[in-house]
Amino acid sequence: MTKVSIIGSGNVAQHLIQAFQLNSQIELIQVFARNKETITHLLDADKITSDYNHLLPADLYIVSVSDDAIAEVSSQLPFENQLVAHTSGTFPLESLDDKNRKGVFYPLQTFSKNKAVDFKTIPLCLEAENKTDLQLLQKIAHSISNAVYEISSEQRKALHIGAVFVNNFVNNLYQIGNEICEKNQIPFDILKPLIQETANKIVTLSPKEAQTGPAKRNDLKTIKAHEQFLTDENQATIYKLLTQSIQNNGKKL
Amino acid sequence: MTKVSIIGSGNVAQHLIQAFQLNSQIELIQVFARNKETITHLLDADKITSDYNHLLPADLYIVSVSDDAIAEVSSQLPFENQLVAHTSGTFPLESLDDKNRKGVFYPLQTFSKNKAVDFKTIPLCLEAENKTDLQLLQKIAHSISNAVYEISSEQRKALHIGAVFVNNFVNNLYQIGNEICEKNQIPFDILKPLIQETANKIVTLSPKEAQTGPAKRNDLKTIKAHEQFLTDENQATIYKLLTQSIQNNGKKL
Repeated sequence: MTKVSIIGSGNVAQHLIQAFQLNSQIELIQVFARNKETITHLLDADKITSDYNHLLPADLYIVSVSDDAIAEVSSQLPFENQLVAHTSGTFPLESLDDKNRKGVFYPLQTFSKNKAVDFKTIPLCLEAENKTDLQLLQKIAHSISNAVYEISSEQRKALHIGAVFVNNFVNNLYQIGNEICEKNQIPFDILKPLIQETANKIVTLSPKEAQTGPAKRNDLKTIKAHEQFLTDENQATIYKLLTQSIQNNGKKL
Repeated sequence: MTKVSIIGSGNVAQHLIQAFQLNSQIELIQVFARNKETITHLLDADKITSDYNHLLPADLYIVSVSDDAIAEVSSQLPFENQLVAHTSGTFPLESLDDKNRKGVFYPLQTFSKNKAVDFKTIPLCLEAENKTDLQLLQKIAHSISNAVYEISSEQRKALHIGAVFVNNFVNNLYQIGNEICEKNQIPFDILKPLIQETANKIVTLSPKEAQTGPAKRNDLKTIKAHEQFLTDENQATIYKLLTQSIQNNGKKL
């Protein structure tokens, strides 16, 4: 069995712990946690250590800590020439300390502490310095996910920006929809089926094909009425800019 | 059984035809279509008419035509004092001709011609001039949907703007995510599970609770790196504005 240890006990680390524990091809050797109690509900206490010097041999050490801590944590590991991978969407491969072989094991998903996810559907973006290490990362990744991709550090940076658009920014638009509902005494629940269908549509259609609405059909009368209705400056500015964005996109066709 | 006829043969009309035909509490009397062939695949030819003078008695006539045609179509109906409802998200109750009793029967969803929808989950927004008509609309609406709401014309206008934000604008952000992927030779499929989970999250969390990302945690270093990465002016402007929107929202807490 392939031996994996995890350094870190945050959100991503906890989801990885659960995915590996359910898996028969991977032996989860150990988890390093500064505060053991954050993860005692997930695995046996004898598998948790808070001392780098107690880390046991493994085929892969996954450093799942906040981006800014990657360099320091990887420099504190008391061994050399082992495979060490971080889970960051933004930091390059090179942010890991030079004394070990570097890799990236980045699950592209929004994780909530109290919401289970089906790891099989989560894209894992891998990167390594050499082919053998990449193959090991691929083997481990395929054991927990059906969506495994080789992604360079530069691509990963682009991907993370794409994720900001389709996750963070989309959620902000949900928030604005919620505000508009609240202001007009409308239950936000009315918009939820539309939100679901909007996300479902692009499974089978490209976003360009799925685009509808007043901006797409250049319905200037409706657009003007909407702009007059929006008294909140933030909402009005976003309305104008995204309407333009859709209109310009139409011209690109 | 309650008798319903539909005037129109577009996207929304076709979905309503299918929903009513599957229903044992509603008798779909007739559908008016200028071009009968657009709907002969959905119902018997003897139930389709292209002549207003051939319209048979019904408890409700649903005018499901483009917004700009509502006034004219409703004025051409050769009867008076019947219940006539339109299906528009934007036009007020009053856009229907005065000779009949007015109603609104607005399904809030994004309909695609070739994609089946489960009508039971689609919110139906109702409005009528009097209580008896409202009750009839409610009875008919409950027979095909589990999500029935009484919504005034003013609220419906707000709701439609909310729908533009959570559907049209969200889809434009998907499109930008797609563009960023294409430009960097990344399959857009990598972002799809994230898109799904983003929509799923707000079923159980409010958008404010679900918000994550560099703007939310005020990670100025990442934000600056992203802004430098985005060379497309449209993308960069949207990035800045929605980052601000999330940051300002945080201050409102």
